[in-house]
Amino acid sequence: MVEESVLRVPAARLQEQMRDILAAWGMNGRHALTTAEVLLAADLAGIDSHGSTLLALYEQQIRSGKAAPDPDISIVRDLGAVFVIDAGAGFGQVAGMMAVEGVIERANKFGLGACAVRNSNHYGAAGVYARRIAEAGLIGISTSSVWRPAIAPTGGKAAMLGTNPIAFAAPTSGDRPFLLDMATSAVAIGKLKLAIREGKTIPEGWAVTGEGAPQRHPTLDLADTLLLPLGGDRLHGGHKGYGLATMVEILSTALSGAAITPLRDPNAPAHDVGHFFMALDPAFFRDDASDFRADVDRLAAALRATPAADPGTPVMVAGDPEYAREDERRQRGIPLPHKLVDELRAIAERAGAPFLLDAEAV
Amino acid sequence: MVEESVLRVPAARLQEQMRDILAAWGMNGRHALTTAEVLLAADLAGIDSHGSTLLALYEQQIRSGKAAPDPDISIVRDLGAVFVIDAGAGFGQVAGMMAVEGVIERANKFGLGACAVRNSNHYGAAGVYARRIAEAGLIGISTSSVWRPAIAPTGGKAAMLGTNPIAFAAPTSGDRPFLLDMATSAVAIGKLKLAIREGKTIPEGWAVTGEGAPQRHPTLDLADTLLLPLGGDRLHGGHKGYGLATMVEILSTALSGAAITPLRDPNAPAHDVGHFFMALDPAFFRDDASDFRADVDRLAAALRATPAADPGTPVMVAGDPEYAREDERRQRGIPLPHKLVDELRAIAERAGAPFLLDAEAV
Repeated sequence: MVEESVLRVPAARLQEQMRDILAAWGMNGRHALTTAEVLLAADLAGIDSHGSTLLALYEQQIRSGKAAPDPDISIVRDLGAVFVIDAGAGFGQVAGMMAVEGVIERANKFGLGACAVRNSNHYGAAGVYARRIAEAGLIGISTSSVWRPAIAPTGGKAAMLGTNPIAFAAPTSGDRPFLLDMATSAVAIGKLKLAIREGKTIPEGWAVTGEGAPQRHPTLDLADTLLLPLGGDRLHGGHKGYGLATMVEILSTALSGAAITPLRDPNAPAHDVGHFFMALDPAFFRDDASDFRADVDRLAAALRATPAADPGTPVMVAGDPEYAREDERRQRGIPLPHKLVDELRAIAERAGAPFLLDAEAV
Repeated sequence: MVEESVLRVPAARLQEQMRDILAAWGMNGRHALTTAEVLLAADLAGIDSHGSTLLALYEQQIRSGKAAPDPDISIVRDLGAVFVIDAGAGFGQVAGMMAVEGVIERANKFGLGACAVRNSNHYGAAGVYARRIAEAGLIGISTSSVWRPAIAPTGGKAAMLGTNPIAFAAPTSGDRPFLLDMATSAVAIGKLKLAIREGKTIPEGWAVTGEGAPQRHPTLDLADTLLLPLGGDRLHGGHKGYGLATMVEILSTALSGAAITPLRDPNAPAHDVGHFFMALDPAFFRDDASDFRADVDRLAAALRATPAADPGTPVMVAGDPEYAREDERRQRGIPLPHKLVDELRAIAERAGAPFLLDAEAV
């Protein structure tokens, strides 16, 4: 990305802007702050598809009535180590953070705790939740279904599952957990969109056409550009990625009672997205929880010390690239393309929220 | 496989043969039966690399002293929903089945239960354990580290992690759970070995050389044929498969206190392999557990009904191919290549166990 084409915005300012827009849509102040915090975490980590860019989608979903701006979020089942939340058709961040707090508390008591969330919407980046659990010293897991199918099952020629993300985080001795945050598709939708915008061909193994043939020239027609699951075609293990996407669907929807993605009624009043959260407390497994953290440290250090194929490109572990971007962005601000700034200005105007990202003001 | 080149052996006979060999090595009768049952389940499902062929490796590990034939297996921590087993340097099947029984019991009580196993060895196919948990009506998960590194981290040119399998099973209304059982490598080692035996080239994305370049002509030299993680290279999402392999390592070793695979001391008295098992009871999440099973049914049916790219090859869900093979093998017997039959004869002779697989007798 060329430096000149972006506006560098301090993290606190971007968070305030998002909070103001969410509040202007009718979200209560505390919920708007939590939602903005979760979105900002993705902006900071460089997961640009899951931060402030999402406000355009969120605005659409509020206008169409699929998302409730100020939902009634409630715990509908509570059985000790397990509880279930109905997110009241709101966005998933507030219910997600309630789930995170709850599974931490239960894992501290029982060794592990789980929460399923139904009647929700997009919840941002899955890794934000897993990381928060790991920052409390526990193993954190989160998965989610997605409002729109995008992945074609192995051997199929129709999109049936969302990009169904899975996040896994484990505490280290330092303040930066091991953090895996991945869609179960071969690539993120964002990479396809970038190739479409730039008119570029994509590698084999990313997508297939509506006939199930390799798609090298993606288009915005979702019926003709179907994501392949992680692995790509069957020869390269795509059936494993498809299996993982199905696992995420089961944990996120069948367990919570949310809509099964390939069977979602497009005319239903809400998307009824589902999430799953889990925490495991290493103190219940090891004599001393610090032994667990030290082992994760040693494992990560050994992996980073793997001889590199390209000496200039050291081997990393999951989370390393995101933490590096976060350091840079906390210091220099979050780089927002001018097109996104314009979009946020328009969204703020339509919402009647103040616009805080004027180049001069920033 | 050409029919003439195999001997069809009834499942019960093969199980008896394996049990007799294990018992002749000094394993107590009940443990030999459990171990043979777990191995047979892989033979039945067509996971041929994880069934009776393993006896050759197991014999080696007993002779080298890395595996104890009659281990003292004990629960070393027990804290309600969580417990930890020391497998006494035995093979992993008996400890694994103890773990399965324990996590089912605990999940029935708490909604979820987990068990970490340390000081173990090869435990056969991960899916056998997850399936057993699902047959009890619960979601089952199992992961394991592996005694030998085989996967190169993304961008690396040395094997650091084993093929680190993950299995996930969910109950359906019928007697056949959804069953995902996958190595986190792009392909199984068995597929590489097959290509080596047949002198064939392999597709890009399966392996790299000791210099980190694509390996198309695999050899048995493990330093020059390193498996890539699921996804293959970074462009195709290989860093996700690498992240999953690391997740499995953390759950299987850091949580149980087993040896961290890339740091295992080759001179240590035992391999100290680790496993992880978990069960979740849908009855704690849904008002009625049968709603969960019905949702898994509906999801699987929707996925199987995906329009197929090749009309002659219907879309499947994880577990379908294995169940189909199991039906065929229960009826026609398990097809053992004559080379394997000869190997089992030699193993039985060395062990002083009766040989039960003579073509005439079978």
